Amino acid sequence: MENKSTSVFPKGNKITNNNFTGTAWLQMLVNNDSTYDTSIGNVTFEPGARTNWHKHPGGQILLITDGSGYYQEKGKSAQLLHKGDVVKIPPDVEHWHGAAPDNELTHIAISPNTNKGSVIWLHPVTDEEYSQMGK
Amino acid sequence: MENKSTSVFPKGNKITNNNFTGTAWLQMLVNNDSTYDTSIGNVTFEPGARTNWHKHPGGQILLITDGSGYYQEKGKSAQLLHKGDVVKIPPDVEHWHGAAPDNELTHIAISPNTNKGSVIWLHPVTDEEYSQMGK
Repeated sequence: MENKSTSVFPKGNKITNNNFTGTAWLQMLVNNDSTYDTSIGNVTFEPGARTNWHKHPGGQILLITDGSGYYQEKGKSAQLLHKGDVVKIPPDVEHWHGAAPDNELTHIAISPNTNKGSVIWLHPVTDEEYSQMGK
Repeated sequence: MENKSTSVFPKGNKITNNNFTGTAWLQMLVNNDSTYDTSIGNVTFEPGARTNWHKHPGGQILLITDGSGYYQEKGKSAQLLHKGDVVKIPPDVEHWHGAAPDNELTHIAISPNTNKGSVIWLHPVTDEEYSQMGK
């Protein structure tokens, strides 16, 4: 899958923590500080990769820049994501996002109101949960 | 210049207010509200177009997605902008941004901390000021 992306921002480094399933990449664009209270990262998910369930005390906004994937809030149906889509994730709502099984997903993740607290990571999205997407 | 852009987000509508010189286009991606305290717009400047001098009480972050142009803070030299650049504009700092004379510029403008107040528009960037760029 290397070098096929037309994304504007660098792919960055492979994410090595346990908050993701599959292979995802992160390039920070803006590190959080007390002036802007905002962090911005460019995230690329390889096919099948996704975040764990998680929530943001200050909310998050996703700008989809390439590929396709899914966004799901706990207890709701998943939403299909395409290049050009914007997702507003309300504060404290449990959710996950990631690539489609057969396509990469690249998005810019904007976390405002970081003074309200950092992301809270929860349990992985199981293969069973993930396999229900796109049906 | 129509339809040559490879930008991810729509070009939107031509800006008709007096806060810009030349022709610029705006597509709002996220409208401000009290949950996110953030507004996000996709802005495209035709060659030679630029904002007036202005400032943001809560600061602003620009993600350059296409073309080339300039960013200048009052009393400083202008900074050349290219696709992939990130500009952090501190709160209350007088500045302008816009396209190069011979190229379009497209950027995503992220305004955090909107609870601190709206953009304050000032006087136009004169042709003399603008002509000093890129020399």
